[in-house]
Amino acid sequence: MTSNVVLSNKEYRVVGTRPVRHDGYDKVTGRALYGADMRPSGLIHGRVLRSPHAHARVLSIDTSRAEAHPEVRAVVTGADLPEPGDRAPRVSTNILARGKALYKGHAVAAVAAASVHAAEEALSLIDVQYEPLPAVRNVAEAMKESAPLVHEDMDSNVTNHTQYVLGDVGKGFASADVVVEREFHTDTVHQGYIEPHTATAWWGSDKITVWCSSQGHFQIGEATAEALGLPSSQVKVVPMEIGGGFGGKTTVYLEPVAALLSLKSGAPVKVTMSRAEVLEASGPTGGSYMKVRIGATGDGRLTAAAAELKYESGAFPGSSVGGGAACIFSPYDIENVLIDAYDVLDNKPKTAAYRAPGAPGAAFAAETILDEIAERLCIDPLDLRIMNGAKEGSRRANGIVNPPIGAIETAEAAKSHEHYSAKLEGPYRGRGVASGFWINGGGAACATANVNYDGTVNLVIGQMDIGGTRPAAAQQFAEVLGIPVEDVNPQVGDTESIGYTSMTGGSGAAFKTGWACYEAAEDVRRQMIGRAAVLWEADASDIEMADGEFRFKKDPELRATFKEVAAALPDTGGPVFGSANVAPTTSGSAFATHIVDVELDPDTGKLTILRYTAVQDAGKAVHPDYVEGQMQGGVVQGIGWALNEEYYMGSDGRMLNSSFLDYRMPTSLDIPMIDTVIVEVANPGHPYGVRGVGEVSIVPPLAAIANAIHSASGVRMNTLPMSPQAVLKAISGKNGV
Amino acid sequence: MTSNVVLSNKEYRVVGTRPVRHDGYDKVTGRALYGADMRPSGLIHGRVLRSPHAHARVLSIDTSRAEAHPEVRAVVTGADLPEPGDRAPRVSTNILARGKALYKGHAVAAVAAASVHAAEEALSLIDVQYEPLPAVRNVAEAMKESAPLVHEDMDSNVTNHTQYVLGDVGKGFASADVVVEREFHTDTVHQGYIEPHTATAWWGSDKITVWCSSQGHFQIGEATAEALGLPSSQVKVVPMEIGGGFGGKTTVYLEPVAALLSLKSGAPVKVTMSRAEVLEASGPTGGSYMKVRIGATGDGRLTAAAAELKYESGAFPGSSVGGGAACIFSPYDIENVLIDAYDVLDNKPKTAAYRAPGAPGAAFAAETILDEIAERLCIDPLDLRIMNGAKEGSRRANGIVNPPIGAIETAEAAKSHEHYSAKLEGPYRGRGVASGFWINGGGAACATANVNYDGTVNLVIGQMDIGGTRPAAAQQFAEVLGIPVEDVNPQVGDTESIGYTSMTGGSGAAFKTGWACYEAAEDVRRQMIGRAAVLWEADASDIEMADGEFRFKKDPELRATFKEVAAALPDTGGPVFGSANVAPTTSGSAFATHIVDVELDPDTGKLTILRYTAVQDAGKAVHPDYVEGQMQGGVVQGIGWALNEEYYMGSDGRMLNSSFLDYRMPTSLDIPMIDTVIVEVANPGHPYGVRGVGEVSIVPPLAAIANAIHSASGVRMNTLPMSPQAVLKAISGKNGV
Repeated sequence: MTSNVVLSNKEYRVVGTRPVRHDGYDKVTGRALYGADMRPSGLIHGRVLRSPHAHARVLSIDTSRAEAHPEVRAVVTGADLPEPGDRAPRVSTNILARGKALYKGHAVAAVAAASVHAAEEALSLIDVQYEPLPAVRNVAEAMKESAPLVHEDMDSNVTNHTQYVLGDVGKGFASADVVVEREFHTDTVHQGYIEPHTATAWWGSDKITVWCSSQGHFQIGEATAEALGLPSSQVKVVPMEIGGGFGGKTTVYLEPVAALLSLKSGAPVKVTMSRAEVLEASGPTGGSYMKVRIGATGDGRLTAAAAELKYESGAFPGSSVGGGAACIFSPYDIENVLIDAYDVLDNKPKTAAYRAPGAPGAAFAAETILDEIAERLCIDPLDLRIMNGAKEGSRRANGIVNPPIGAIETAEAAKSHEHYSAKLEGPYRGRGVASGFWINGGGAACATANVNYDGTVNLVIGQMDIGGTRPAAAQQFAEVLGIPVEDVNPQVGDTESIGYTSMTGGSGAAFKTGWACYEAAEDVRRQMIGRAAVLWEADASDIEMADGEFRFKKDPELRATFKEVAAALPDTGGPVFGSANVAPTTSGSAFATHIVDVELDPDTGKLTILRYTAVQDAGKAVHPDYVEGQMQGGVVQGIGWALNEEYYMGSDGRMLNSSFLDYRMPTSLDIPMIDTVIVEVANPGHPYGVRGVGEVSIVPPLAAIANAIHSASGVRMNTLPMSPQAVLKAISGKNGV
Repeated sequence: MTSNVVLSNKEYRVVGTRPVRHDGYDKVTGRALYGADMRPSGLIHGRVLRSPHAHARVLSIDTSRAEAHPEVRAVVTGADLPEPGDRAPRVSTNILARGKALYKGHAVAAVAAASVHAAEEALSLIDVQYEPLPAVRNVAEAMKESAPLVHEDMDSNVTNHTQYVLGDVGKGFASADVVVEREFHTDTVHQGYIEPHTATAWWGSDKITVWCSSQGHFQIGEATAEALGLPSSQVKVVPMEIGGGFGGKTTVYLEPVAALLSLKSGAPVKVTMSRAEVLEASGPTGGSYMKVRIGATGDGRLTAAAAELKYESGAFPGSSVGGGAACIFSPYDIENVLIDAYDVLDNKPKTAAYRAPGAPGAAFAAETILDEIAERLCIDPLDLRIMNGAKEGSRRANGIVNPPIGAIETAEAAKSHEHYSAKLEGPYRGRGVASGFWINGGGAACATANVNYDGTVNLVIGQMDIGGTRPAAAQQFAEVLGIPVEDVNPQVGDTESIGYTSMTGGSGAAFKTGWACYEAAEDVRRQMIGRAAVLWEADASDIEMADGEFRFKKDPELRATFKEVAAALPDTGGPVFGSANVAPTTSGSAFATHIVDVELDPDTGKLTILRYTAVQDAGKAVHPDYVEGQMQGGVVQGIGWALNEEYYMGSDGRMLNSSFLDYRMPTSLDIPMIDTVIVEVANPGHPYGVRGVGEVSIVPPLAAIANAIHSASGVRMNTLPMSPQAVLKAISGKNGV
């Protein structure tokens, strides 16, 4: 991997270095404890009975035979949850169906028994009477006048329509010399995290304790409490290590079920999904229909852009279309924009977030159209992007005014990269580029720091660590105090031991928790200076701390290290304990520009990724290894989404490829090493200039690959996935076969 | 139980009430997790091989046959620990012997195997060659000129001599009209906690995690690290619930052994003591020899007091004689005092703290002599104590000047209690009184408080909760904010999640951690007022908080509850997280006066406790139930010590009664309900006027019972225990039998 960091931010001592991650040893030696690793004494096991129908009325559930099974300790159904609409939200019936099963895989009952096998066996003893109903499987079916309603108490399967208007698109398109409009279809895809959902719950006398892996244990606790109709402080969640989330581990499926089974049985209960259950009954991202139109003047100035985005939300309201609408045109300054975004229900699992939710599909549409415009105008596609690039002070479609951002710097770094000018010869080979934008969310974050008497520091954060939050937190903390990052021991506190912290999502974790750690370190610094003052019988205002050293301003000889002052804490007032809470609303805006070279097999339609370079603005890369890892991971997921991944649905609404053998994600054999270039345009809204980095890298690949396919074959793809059969069909069509 | 609180302190809303303790439900339903309840995956089990000799040279240890046992995973000996004197302290050889075994039960090796049974079996495969040496079993033997040395590199078995001098005892005794001097002997006794020592350790790649119950997980971590020659931050200790400590769970026996076995085996290892091991190889309090002399004028003014205190420390230096010296005469103002205190090694287990360490034996001596003086002078024994009672501003033998204290108020409350004037008729019945003092220690304590958005608060303390620290912490926190104590969720953080907190000992837990909680609540209050200001777009200085309500001073209609402001936190800046550290040096001085009625069976010497009333100054009783519980528990332990408990040693230095059947502790059938009177003389050194309450109640019973025996039989006892055979012998002697 070449790692070419384009710097425009400050250099630091610890921030920007690449220390061994604090959780690394435990992870590579198998000692780290993941979701399923908690086994309290007396643990029993739960399994979930799921609907075989995509849409069906549940006429009756008879659990009596299961309850009579000698090893069964508890059986629960939707009737054990509070009535939705009363104390619990509508989506709580996603946890256990009430009245209707809304998709194949929808939970209808659950059993806890002494063993997983007994629980599995007892599922077959539950008698459910279904009345199958016609199902809607995509946006087109769901929006038909005569479509069956997913929720019969709602007027329509369209649950929301948002419109963003900027300027006057009519005028904008009228002033354009070239206008391109295309339609696009994308399919349901899954985040594909390696660790299945699992929850262990123990309903105690005064609270419920839940052990699970998630992207936000506070939010899992809130959602579990909400589903059970309890105050959120009655659910304690202990975060376990997480084997991937990517947006999919932001909601609850098993936690309330395990809790109810625990309440009924009196024992702690563990419920774990199989891979098929993960694919059929957790939260993938939905398919979509998009119509997008962009106009430009002859010299390449974008005059107007319009988009109609219709995203599936699955069986309950709430798709990622908002993300698509917020991102689709945001890498560019366009004066006239109109975006219509629709949330559409269908009989599929309720969608969840998936890395930069909504943006990759939208960018697939907009960035392939831009490629077509550049081609028509004979303008270099990166020049077109640089020329129209979003700048500080300009306004996005949703009204937000851009702060200092790195949109143009990122595109320029791609343009000047050796890859972009490298020769690419041979038939059926092509190069594509695309840019992408992601909002980058903020949220509350807390950190506390205990200074040990040996000069090390225990740093507790509330942020679930998915991709290196602990080292990033420790680095931002250590930087303030000038101590080695190895002397900081970062860890994630449970919901009762650290203050409320928002989800590890929106690319905000290292940003917001890092900021909290910076502030907590400042708090420690203030207190430690106070202790040095006691030690030296001096005034605190006469003491400064720099480079990990306390110095008496009036006498340069009087110095003490952090460790020395720490050793004196017992005699200068006891422990020093720093803390901080922050709640930023954004983690800065993220921009990425990618370059990809592909080779196409004209006989099979199979695509080979020859070379890939991802350029991204990180503001300041706290730990460049993990920034690069995020960039590479995002690209790989984008490649999978672009080329192979899809929910292959039967006509009866059942997923036909619910295993990792048939649901084809890229492996290390399928892809080259992804080259990365980190651009650092400092974010003024963070002490170290950090921006969120986790998501934007999944935004450009779909379009970049589609553009490369066009470069290789002359064919423009507008449907995902661009699988061998789809590409073959497109080439054949073009070739008149 | 009558509970008669004599008030001179303020009344509060929450402090002083008796809510259900937060950990109560889990404890009574069996859900609470104690030391042995942690069972990480892959757990294996350790057992310890112990010396059968009271003193022996270890010539060789051959572990090869044990290592060859198919189920054995690791064997360790003292050679696996760092050399004492180098990186580790001398006492680390108490964990695993090096060179010599210093008492019967001294650990010499340990084995970890797949099962406890296999480990037990493998112990018999370890071949240890001993050369038995002559042993010293008590102070008299140890201080002989020709005594064998317990530590051959030391000059003497006397390891320390401290002298306190106040005034001129020669002059003091010369001015006395009556002088009484007596000698006293006490024997080794054990704290008798119900939960045996147990430790589970997992030596991870970068740190060791230990799960155990203790009186201070931070100190257990430090001691474990010290024994292993590691920085203390490399040992993480997770506190489990504790089944009694009373001073005995303040040190390490098994933790370093389990850690070494884990290092060698790569697995987590649990080691648990049997009851015999607890008695023979943990830390009881030592026996003693005391010579005490007190002089008084004819009208009852104490003119001088002298004490020679020689306390066994067991096989390593450090007895509790310092506590005896600090307490023996401290309930009284005496101008001339001379105290000589000696630490004496012998071949018994290293002593540890036991509730008011050193004070009960010393009070047994001083308070029986006072009784004799009162008798000789025909002064009521409580009047003698009141007349000479310690007052604010007077000086103790160790030079400390008394702050505002309740010595006289406590004795007066006893004197005016109905019990003291109640008729006591019948032969062989008698009433005795005695007073007691305990220092009350301080130390560092931390608390952090997370305000949940539902208005409840998670309160994390670093203090191990033995006797109700969690409710006491929650009450002192809730009081500041005017919220219900049920809305506070107190819990004990592990060594990495909360700041360094000192031991739960010295009666300081509710005092120091309560103070930290008070300060943390003040921090929360300040921040919450700031949020109310954001909410009302007002200046924080115009908002006050009282009775759990925020009020806008300029408009009495504008009010908000704590819950309402909490619900607005997400929109006013995110979470509120308060914290505080305190490090007081003392928790105020504790005084107690007890009254006991006994009946003596002249045929068997058996004593029946007919009635017992304990009066104690609590400063402010935070949760009177638990103050009363501490008082009653201290009295019961004092009764056991007075009447039955002793290490019955064979001539070869082995304990012959190492089971709870033969080591006779009182049961509920042996004692009446202990009446309690809480006196509240506010301690100006604490926000609520609290004093430590846990220990002083064990100080008076030994002497009070001895005085009651005298009242019943005319016999003065000066040796413990005052068992039936001892009492019978004494009565017989008096009766000339």
